Amino acid sequence: MSNQPMRPFLEAGLARIREIVGEAHVVADPAEVDRRARDIIAEVRRPTAYVYPGDREEVRLIVEAAAEHGLSLWPCSRGRNWGYGGSTPAVDGSIVVNMERMNRVLEVNEELAYARIEPGVSYRQLNEHLKTIGAKLWADCTDGPPEGSVMGNALERGIGETPYGDHFGQLCGMEVILADGRVVRTGGGAPDCKTWNTHRWGCGPVLDGLFSQSNLGIVTEVGIWLMPEPECCRSYIFEIADGVEVGQVVDAVRKLALTNAIQTNIHLINDVVSLSVATQFPRELLGGEPRLTEEMMAGQRKKFGIARWTFGGALYGSREQVRANQRVLRRALRSLGRLTFVSDLQVWAVRLLLRMLETQPEDGLVCRTLDQAIRLTTGKSLPLVRSVPHFHGIQKGIPSEYFLRHAYFKCADRRPESDVNPARDGCGLMWVAPILPMTGHHLDEIIELTAPLFERYGFEHYMALILQNPRSMINLMSIFFDPEDATERARALELYHELVTATSNAGYQQYRTSVLCMDRIFERAGDFQRLAEALKGALDPDNVLAPGRYGIGGGERKEATLDEPPRAATTVA
Amino acid sequence: MSNQPMRPFLEAGLARIREIVGEAHVVADPAEVDRRARDIIAEVRRPTAYVYPGDREEVRLIVEAAAEHGLSLWPCSRGRNWGYGGSTPAVDGSIVVNMERMNRVLEVNEELAYARIEPGVSYRQLNEHLKTIGAKLWADCTDGPPEGSVMGNALERGIGETPYGDHFGQLCGMEVILADGRVVRTGGGAPDCKTWNTHRWGCGPVLDGLFSQSNLGIVTEVGIWLMPEPECCRSYIFEIADGVEVGQVVDAVRKLALTNAIQTNIHLINDVVSLSVATQFPRELLGGEPRLTEEMMAGQRKKFGIARWTFGGALYGSREQVRANQRVLRRALRSLGRLTFVSDLQVWAVRLLLRMLETQPEDGLVCRTLDQAIRLTTGKSLPLVRSVPHFHGIQKGIPSEYFLRHAYFKCADRRPESDVNPARDGCGLMWVAPILPMTGHHLDEIIELTAPLFERYGFEHYMALILQNPRSMINLMSIFFDPEDATERARALELYHELVTATSNAGYQQYRTSVLCMDRIFERAGDFQRLAEALKGALDPDNVLAPGRYGIGGGERKEATLDEPPRAATTVA
Repeated sequence: MSNQPMRPFLEAGLARIREIVGEAHVVADPAEVDRRARDIIAEVRRPTAYVYPGDREEVRLIVEAAAEHGLSLWPCSRGRNWGYGGSTPAVDGSIVVNMERMNRVLEVNEELAYARIEPGVSYRQLNEHLKTIGAKLWADCTDGPPEGSVMGNALERGIGETPYGDHFGQLCGMEVILADGRVVRTGGGAPDCKTWNTHRWGCGPVLDGLFSQSNLGIVTEVGIWLMPEPECCRSYIFEIADGVEVGQVVDAVRKLALTNAIQTNIHLINDVVSLSVATQFPRELLGGEPRLTEEMMAGQRKKFGIARWTFGGALYGSREQVRANQRVLRRALRSLGRLTFVSDLQVWAVRLLLRMLETQPEDGLVCRTLDQAIRLTTGKSLPLVRSVPHFHGIQKGIPSEYFLRHAYFKCADRRPESDVNPARDGCGLMWVAPILPMTGHHLDEIIELTAPLFERYGFEHYMALILQNPRSMINLMSIFFDPEDATERARALELYHELVTATSNAGYQQYRTSVLCMDRIFERAGDFQRLAEALKGALDPDNVLAPGRYGIGGGERKEATLDEPPRAATTVA
Repeated sequence: MSNQPMRPFLEAGLARIREIVGEAHVVADPAEVDRRARDIIAEVRRPTAYVYPGDREEVRLIVEAAAEHGLSLWPCSRGRNWGYGGSTPAVDGSIVVNMERMNRVLEVNEELAYARIEPGVSYRQLNEHLKTIGAKLWADCTDGPPEGSVMGNALERGIGETPYGDHFGQLCGMEVILADGRVVRTGGGAPDCKTWNTHRWGCGPVLDGLFSQSNLGIVTEVGIWLMPEPECCRSYIFEIADGVEVGQVVDAVRKLALTNAIQTNIHLINDVVSLSVATQFPRELLGGEPRLTEEMMAGQRKKFGIARWTFGGALYGSREQVRANQRVLRRALRSLGRLTFVSDLQVWAVRLLLRMLETQPEDGLVCRTLDQAIRLTTGKSLPLVRSVPHFHGIQKGIPSEYFLRHAYFKCADRRPESDVNPARDGCGLMWVAPILPMTGHHLDEIIELTAPLFERYGFEHYMALILQNPRSMINLMSIFFDPEDATERARALELYHELVTATSNAGYQQYRTSVLCMDRIFERAGDFQRLAEALKGALDPDNVLAPGRYGIGGGERKEATLDEPPRAATTVA
């Protein structure tokens, strides 16, 4: 396909776009497009080109050019949406507009604790910027890529870690380019409106939600609320006791979150998740089994000091506020497992220790002895201890590549320590993420529904339960696969769709979805989809912007950029 | 005007509506329509009829009938939007669809702490319902009418008192009737979606905001989050010390709210507000002055033990959480004024005392002696003490008519103790409510801008600052006037528009507005208005629903129901 000549109207459109952004910022070479269109999911659609505008006006002109030349655009902020499609479109042929060059922090208001940023600002950059200017503010991050876009993740409704972890919920004030090239601000205020970034609802209808998980405009600037640095921060790790059902923990967490003793978007992870963070997939153990059996998992749990279920979080506030919440947590969780609090001082000591070990080989005497000592005193292992400073840092908005390394679980012999890029490095991982009411019985139902599917397809049952709000949790399931193995990849894809179908049929919607599944997302919500399509028809009648994104405007645009019919899946990786 | 014959197509439409809802639930008699169209603002537009549907299907059929017969509808939940227009439309001629009969509490989920309710459910009803079924949940209320609609206030983005006081922010899941008669649920889930009322953003674009402060659909059901009854609740009252600037207090409050030591939507009120709560307007003092002078206000402050600025709130949680927050508040506010905490036990004692006084005349020996004793020991007055149980109750979601009585400040010799209905009783009051970033310097600017206007027009400068979120506060200004006095009413209306103009020109948007001002609300935000109009055009091309509401679809519908051109203001009261 990549060897076929481009169609003339696409060429004219790209020529115009080259004029707008400059030759250096357009990539249309098929091999290079393929390289940039890599993601870790099992298959992706093929874009025609990658375009990197430098400012809002260039984006606006690109939109006008696309409308004029019959092209469709797939805007993304930085393209690190790994496991959901990266920077690849929902239908073949779109031109990806990657806004990573638009990376200015436009304003930090320390008094009112917010920033205004462009799409290209990453977690790492925002965190460093705040430290550089000496602002006593923290920006929430995820445990995913530090180079991920703060805005992009928020518009996708990603979840972080601190009390500001509902990322979409922290946005306040958007600047949006509509399909007709007009620029509009949400909030209903005048251009000099003083509460644009402090009053979320504005005046008149609240339109911000139109531009999240959709394709009704291109957001080129947002206000985002930041967390004032508290007097005291203490992170904590909870490990479930043997014999306790995870449902009991979920019910306890809900009550604690509803009364604000749990303040963060905690991640309750099972042993498969912990293992994938601690080490590489122990393929050598399989011995003909398609996946790790429960017995093998028990061995791995023992080897690394991993609990069946673990969650971590943090408390913030004055010293007495933190102490009071510690007491509430201890009382509520005592009978369910082990709760360990971690202070800045303790993390400093662990860091010091790890620095001393830097020159020591992992399988050398020093590391092995220390590992043994840790096992004897705490039941944990050195790999788990290594994660503590990263975990603690993320609770304070300091991004880390550490946890992202778990994407390499099945894909390479050794995961990198830095410059972690699973898409470039050929990892295989797909997220399925239904959301459920935060009760033990809903979790039991989800496990009953999904565990047999993971077993049938021969994949480990990875489950992370992420608190979206005190009443709902995301059930993040990951399918790790070896993308080099075509059979395994096909099996993974089948499991993916089975999981979506099973959870959807049981009344669980996806909290977010990948480009693999966008055309299915409203298959049981036709009325809603019709409403969304009516809005699309009003704002983008020619379907210029992101056709097919979240099931809206899918495949209806006459794809000038296509040499094949739209929506045919093409594997790139 | 009310004596002119109705137009034939209006008559046919109303006949159809009578078929739908039943003769008893349509009011078209001009005198009775005028009576129901009373509000406390200086002038209202005149509807043609009041219609009271009994269920969702009737609303749906009314929408279809209106489309067919060229009528326009003005939906309202219970019509208690007093001071913003009550149940009157933005343009003359609309048929008011009042949904007060649709008042079922459809579900209470105690585990997940939410309810599903219809538009007609009032604060009083929901509170009583929760107590009747023994649910340990509190529904936030306002200090306004207990008979106000929970849903209506939330869609208007009203503010309550507890941590659940951002009412729109507590909505989760809406059922909406569109102008074409289709019924749609927000959230993007299937009909059996289990997180409809627990996951606010759903999947795909977030469309709930389309139906708030607007006219893009009729909301017939919402999910609303409720607050689990805490182990401990302690309310508090802060009074500013002499010599302290109110801006210092605002800055302190922001910091406390950002660190969650202030958890509620506190109301910071000036002396005029306190006086209007404590007593009737002391007209006898004026002596030729158009309004109370600063000297007179000083006398009134002394007489009633009123501080220049006061705010109240509450703390919730476990005993240790509340104690920790008490300490934080004390430390932060010590140098700024007096902070008094109130426990359930103290309120019980005050209630007992007040009950004993019930048989005593207010100017009798017992009350006077007690009043003196209170003054000597606390510097407060008996009228202020009377308010404490009501204030404390509202912090726990128990609605009260007590504070609503302040609407009678300038309108009657004696305010009622119960059955408080300022619209029926001919009070005069208009709210102007710009919102500002929560800083002392923004408040100073607003005071500098608005105080001279209140002085010029001869009205007391009523100012309540309501925390919308830790970064923004609503500056609620009220113009009290005597509606019987045509000159005063005209002056009040002039002041109203001057305040809107002055604050708007300075970059402050209204957080909410009355029907008096909807056509002005986007006068400096044309791009936003065009976007809103595009959405209106897509969802309600014939402008059937609430033309002119929040500046959208204003006056563009060919008003079949009109005998005069639309948008001409007509005074009813």
